[in-house]
Amino acid sequence: MRKISILGSTGSIGTNTLKVIEANQNEFDVRYLTAGSNAEKLANQAKIYNPDALAIANSDKYLELKRRTKKLNLEIYQGREGILEIASRSNIDLVCNSIVGAAGMEPTYQVLKAGNDLALSNKESLVMGGSVIMELAAENGLDIFPIDSEHNAIWQCLRGEQKQEISRLILTASGGPFRNTPMSELEKVGPREALNHPTWDMGKKITIDSATMMNKGFELIEASWLFDIEPENIDIIVHPQSVIHSMVEFQDGSIKAELGLPDMKLPIQYALFYPEHRPVKWEDTDLAQLSELTFEKPDTEKFRNLKLAQNALEQGGTAPTILNVANDIAVVSFLNKKIGFTEISDVIEKALKEIQVIQDPNIDDIIDCQANTGEYVNKIIKKEEV
Amino acid sequence: MRKISILGSTGSIGTNTLKVIEANQNEFDVRYLTAGSNAEKLANQAKIYNPDALAIANSDKYLELKRRTKKLNLEIYQGREGILEIASRSNIDLVCNSIVGAAGMEPTYQVLKAGNDLALSNKESLVMGGSVIMELAAENGLDIFPIDSEHNAIWQCLRGEQKQEISRLILTASGGPFRNTPMSELEKVGPREALNHPTWDMGKKITIDSATMMNKGFELIEASWLFDIEPENIDIIVHPQSVIHSMVEFQDGSIKAELGLPDMKLPIQYALFYPEHRPVKWEDTDLAQLSELTFEKPDTEKFRNLKLAQNALEQGGTAPTILNVANDIAVVSFLNKKIGFTEISDVIEKALKEIQVIQDPNIDDIIDCQANTGEYVNKIIKKEEV
Repeated sequence: MRKISILGSTGSIGTNTLKVIEANQNEFDVRYLTAGSNAEKLANQAKIYNPDALAIANSDKYLELKRRTKKLNLEIYQGREGILEIASRSNIDLVCNSIVGAAGMEPTYQVLKAGNDLALSNKESLVMGGSVIMELAAENGLDIFPIDSEHNAIWQCLRGEQKQEISRLILTASGGPFRNTPMSELEKVGPREALNHPTWDMGKKITIDSATMMNKGFELIEASWLFDIEPENIDIIVHPQSVIHSMVEFQDGSIKAELGLPDMKLPIQYALFYPEHRPVKWEDTDLAQLSELTFEKPDTEKFRNLKLAQNALEQGGTAPTILNVANDIAVVSFLNKKIGFTEISDVIEKALKEIQVIQDPNIDDIIDCQANTGEYVNKIIKKEEV
Repeated sequence: MRKISILGSTGSIGTNTLKVIEANQNEFDVRYLTAGSNAEKLANQAKIYNPDALAIANSDKYLELKRRTKKLNLEIYQGREGILEIASRSNIDLVCNSIVGAAGMEPTYQVLKAGNDLALSNKESLVMGGSVIMELAAENGLDIFPIDSEHNAIWQCLRGEQKQEISRLILTASGGPFRNTPMSELEKVGPREALNHPTWDMGKKITIDSATMMNKGFELIEASWLFDIEPENIDIIVHPQSVIHSMVEFQDGSIKAELGLPDMKLPIQYALFYPEHRPVKWEDTDLAQLSELTFEKPDTEKFRNLKLAQNALEQGGTAPTILNVANDIAVVSFLNKKIGFTEISDVIEKALKEIQVIQDPNIDDIIDCQANTGEYVNKIIKKEEV
């Protein structure tokens, strides 16, 4: 049995990862689980999988977690330090980092520093710390297996292929719930409308990032790092049915695509068992029933986040870190109805304009930038200076 | 420079093969060319590529070919024997067999017997002689590179993959020009309507096979042999835009597709340079311009040839040979207005019913069956017994 650790096990991807492990009995020994603040769910998972240790990021939930798991004889850690303690354990075959948002970057760094292979769904790790993370993985000879359906699709399409023969990556985007909403109406949009994603059933944070298309902006940056492809060779195409998960074009014009139903268990399983396609099928894809797939260019005037992400990637250094942290906080503020939908982009734009970008950052520069950006963005939202 | 031989160089695929060779200067030395009966075009090709020898199947054109190439100091062969003479030359790195129809099977056999790798677009080779051909290739350790866009797509999708992890092959079909024509109107269809293919610009024979969907029936049989997949694990799906060339589903439900513009130069180039994707792009694929891809189940009541092909494959032995030869002659008769469109299926059905099927045939049994079927089918068409 392979020893596995799941960081962010109570979220959407973490829960699906445990379903995949459940469906492939006797393959994985779950050793560590961590959560943000859902103590009850984490305790219930611990009762089923009997790990060695747990960590919960929100220290306010530490005692609740302790109480709910007192019969299990577990080590229990709390806070950011607790998550990093678990992330840096070295006696593990594969670590899944499915932490949501900027908080996932440092754990990714610790996992690689500890010498463990990583199945990664936390896209912020590469958006914020791409250069540092990829360098560390290369130095330690470690694999990063992408779980995000788009990057997982590209990774599958690249099986048996040569990097130098790639002409471009084509990331598909659902376009989110506001694909057909006039730009003028976006200001009035509330969390309820934004959380109503047409095809994927995902966590709240990523659903909002899909509605603003920041998700695709992040994926552009992530793909550039993961596959070592220049940003100008990565295209984004809106494909509302989300059936084609992404594509790769080769220099002879041949395009390879990976497609299937929108079920995250499939890319998770592929990452967990790579290079095997495990014979657990979750649901059949009936192509005749799909009947039609459509494609259109993204509207970068309406979805300003796409341009902000492209600009940040071009600017380099800590600019994508600022983009990322500002977006994290702005999205939470939108969900809490502190700011409006279009103000998410306003917050990010302002942060990118006002905070100094550091070129060639090391991990500490990125962590500092994360703190500074958080402080700045919280301040402008509180003071309603957006 | 690799030495190459092109059997059927004046047809649609042969001509495109020479365009690919032209676009990749100094890679191939064209040593042999053969044609069915277009002496003028073959002579013109000889003037450009300066091969060692030519052959023309139609002996009536032998003197014309000789006259047109008298300054070139070439060996010139004629008739079936002449084509086989060229096919069996052993001093060649790659032979392309792009002969149209049943006449292509024996040359394929001779190419493999002579120990040469084969780039194959003549689908009848595998439809008629699948067991014998695949056995001979395996015995001699030779590769068969499929040029047909569907099989080429599947071959591309299988790069880096394990055969035992395939759950099914999905062949896409354009549906041809009569996809939306009511069944009752098919009887009145003439060659002009049938030759009007919606997406691919191909030779006459294969265009009619596309209109009757026999092309897809042949491809089902061919795919079963090429990739060693049971017929029940090969699906056919109608995809009128012909953008997705074919797909492979793996046992975890992941589907890989190869797509691009309908240009045969792309799969030809891939077969010629495998495993390389050569950086000659013929035209850019703009996915946003394609705007929509549709899928539907094939109508096997209307397109009886699909069922006839499936039945022949199930019956095994020389049944697919009968299917193939009967279709070849029926299509020519339709093009010559001797029989109607729906009578193509009538002819094949009658041949399959009346001619004795030999199980576990050797190459001679297949050649005999080819002759017998030809005789029988020509007789019933002449006597208007269809």
